[in-house]
Amino acid sequence: MTAEIVHALSNEALVEQYRNAGFGGRVGWGKKAAVLVIDMAGTWTNPDAMIGSNLEGVTAQIKTVLDAARDAGAPVLFTTMAYDPTYSDVTQVSRLKTPHSSTMLRGEGAADVIPELERRPDEALIEKPRASAFLNTNLISVLVDRGIDTVVVVGCSTSGCIRSTCESAVDLGFHALVPQEAVGDRSESAHIANLFDIDQRYADVITVDDVVKHFAEGA
Amino acid sequence: MTAEIVHALSNEALVEQYRNAGFGGRVGWGKKAAVLVIDMAGTWTNPDAMIGSNLEGVTAQIKTVLDAARDAGAPVLFTTMAYDPTYSDVTQVSRLKTPHSSTMLRGEGAADVIPELERRPDEALIEKPRASAFLNTNLISVLVDRGIDTVVVVGCSTSGCIRSTCESAVDLGFHALVPQEAVGDRSESAHIANLFDIDQRYADVITVDDVVKHFAEGA
Amino acid sequence: MTAEIVHALSNEALVEQYRNAGFGGRVGWGKKAAVLVIDMAGTWTNPDAMIGSNLEGVTAQIKTVLDAARDAGAPVLFTTMAYDPTYSDVTQVSRLKTPHSSTMLRGEGAADVIPELERRPDEALIEKPRASAFLNTNLISVLVDRGIDTVVVVGCSTSGCIRSTCESAVDLGFHALVPQEAVGDRSESAHIANLFDIDQRYADVITVDDVVKHFAEGA
Amino acid sequence: MTAEIVHALSNEALVEQYRNAGFGGRVGWGKKAAVLVIDMAGTWTNPDAMIGSNLEGVTAQIKTVLDAARDAGAPVLFTTMAYDPTYSDVTQVSRLKTPHSSTMLRGEGAADVIPELERRPDEALIEKPRASAFLNTNLISVLVDRGIDTVVVVGCSTSGCIRSTCESAVDLGFHALVPQEAVGDRSESAHIANLFDIDQRYADVITVDDVVKHFAEGA
Repeated sequence: MTAEIVHALSNEALVEQYRNAGFGGRVGWGKKAAVLVIDMAGTWTNPDAMIGSNLEGVTAQIKTVLDAARDAGAPVLFTTMAYDPTYSDVTQVSRLKTPHSSTMLRGEGAADVIPELERRPDEALIEKPRASAFLNTNLISVLVDRGIDTVVVVGCSTSGCIRSTCESAVDLGFHALVPQEAVGDRSESAHIANLFDIDQRYADVITVDDVVKHFAEGA
Repeated sequence: MTAEIVHALSNEALVEQYRNAGFGGRVGWGKKAAVLVIDMAGTWTNPDAMIGSNLEGVTAQIKTVLDAARDAGAPVLFTTMAYDPTYSDVTQVSRLKTPHSSTMLRGEGAADVIPELERRPDEALIEKPRASAFLNTNLISVLVDRGIDTVVVVGCSTSGCIRSTCESAVDLGFHALVPQEAVGDRSESAHIANLFDIDQRYADVITVDDVVKHFAEGA
Repeated sequence: MTAEIVHALSNEALVEQYRNAGFGGRVGWGKKAAVLVIDMAGTWTNPDAMIGSNLEGVTAQIKTVLDAARDAGAPVLFTTMAYDPTYSDVTQVSRLKTPHSSTMLRGEGAADVIPELERRPDEALIEKPRASAFLNTNLISVLVDRGIDTVVVVGCSTSGCIRSTCESAVDLGFHALVPQEAVGDRSESAHIANLFDIDQRYADVITVDDVVKHFAEGA
Repeated sequence: MTAEIVHALSNEALVEQYRNAGFGGRVGWGKKAAVLVIDMAGTWTNPDAMIGSNLEGVTAQIKTVLDAARDAGAPVLFTTMAYDPTYSDVTQVSRLKTPHSSTMLRGEGAADVIPELERRPDEALIEKPRASAFLNTNLISVLVDRGIDTVVVVGCSTSGCIRSTCESAVDLGFHALVPQEAVGDRSESAHIANLFDIDQRYADVITVDDVVKHFAEGA
């Protein structure tokens, strides 16, 4: 984790405590990496939407990551969330807890990946029902099938879907890496606190530059 | 399992061996049942399609089950299989093993539930990537959320998606029941052999009449 | 969530932002609740252990919850973590990230549930490989099988296994409830921050008194 | 699939029907293979046990496979089934359907891998609750973590745990291969019929010789 994030966290006691408990090791890159773009759709990128915020800076950083990956021929996968308007395919408990699911109805456009990222037809789009991209989706099978052992996780929100996806990734045996400028959150304090947790527990928090260099080296 | 099926199986030695090994117990009905209609779409119901066969009789039986369930207010859920034409969302190993996945492309109509079953908007349609309706889909969450502990499995094919779905159901703690006239297969011998296996290992094989009676009793 | 926790969080801006985004709804109790006791073993409860801390107060609160549940005949389940000393049954990436897994070796006693909680033989002990009690364990099947739709999550650590288990619970369609005095963490600030997140996203944060009353009412 | 098996199946019509439907493709070997030894414990290998049968010939073939894998440095993993005597960790529906679970109680020895296979300490032993080695166990994570994309499935029973494990393997994106002499079943007819189904749908049925050659080539 960068010194910048640790500094922003302003909680030296917590950092020390986690270090003593042995958290925060490095997993590094595995043999074959894919970029996993989480929920870059209007529901989240439209600042006027219920759970939206301005993610223009994050979008630009993701484009840098995508350029590097596509140039290197590395796989790219996208996720979004979209429910049937009758909610027949999702749970009531999730609607009770997070009623903003009402902003993610299928066919209304808000769930479409933003055009700036120029998703290509052969870049899978996984519709996920909950925060983790691995929960009740075919993602694990697609990654295993293609021999992908490393996921570079970008998109939003750091405190929600990014964190959950990173946790699932390490739980399932994958190397997970998060370029910190390429993930965003509606709350800056939640962004910082969760980057810290992610780095301590689930994924290596790195920079976009690290990712670009890795793909440039043909890895 | 009905005497009829055991008779059709013509393998008294196998029946005896399974009985001695303790297979074939009854799980019965739980507290709240849903009907799960598996893959009743053109890919399978069109006799001219690669893996299709004539399922008119089965369709009629399913309608009887659906009428009973809907009258009783019991939940109904449907599944189908549909892949992106680029195959970006499925595995290569599944395509190698079962190349008929090429007949299940999204948007071509063959994956749509047949109109005879009159699916209602609030009856969930789960797109599943593989045979079991539970594999990498949100089905488990929807069932838990609604307090459903019993699934009446109908549709096709007995030897493939029906069998797999029943196995997952019992694996995950559900009561599974299969009304034998409401499931079908392109091969009659595979149909019979798999009904036997299903009844011995995963689900109670019963009759459509049993299901109608159960729902009529308001259960 | 109690006013006390919101106050301790000292981040009014964050609270407001989450409220505007629609987070923090109530899921309430379902029809049948079980108590899920997470990781109350020496690895975590021994203050001298690598990731241990003093959890005496939490232990006392858990005993109050267990008394109420057992008196009401409600199911109780325990979890712990324990690895083969060769690490053949776990992942290298998890060891790299959280090397304190070396304190959870099978057969060394540190993974045993502490005797103060008097686990009964018919109260399941689930060995889990990672933070969530649902990840790669038989827990989901056991809960479905017994018609349990609500889990009261107690134990440790709030920021790790409690949080993850609550997220999985709501993801899988369960009602999850966390009595705040009956969960603990080695870091007080992480405890507070994660109770907030849990309450906003995954589970209702309530009090031990709420749980005792619920079970006393025979629910 | 070998001509021998097809011949034994004595159902030319079925074979033809599956071929026309596009089943039975080859998945072949991936990049890194492990041997997965299913349920070679007294519960199944003791001919006097409820679901046991004489598997001496199969045991000898498995030893040949293990010798080849160990010489090549390929990973080996074992499974068994073992329940708490109170059944607190398994489902009632599984006990109702297959009451022979009463022969798989933890600590009674019948669940131990047979000594003939000389399991080494670093060869993982996965306790599985149901037929598939992947269902509610940590197996998927261990395989992903080690970069294993191919499983050579041996052990018993062909019609139960072997079949289910192969289905899960392909569902999850793995290449699965079954050396036919190294899997066994209490029923010869079930053995033959299930080898056919496995080969058509889930895994390539090959010979022990094929496996030995593959490992000898350093693959």
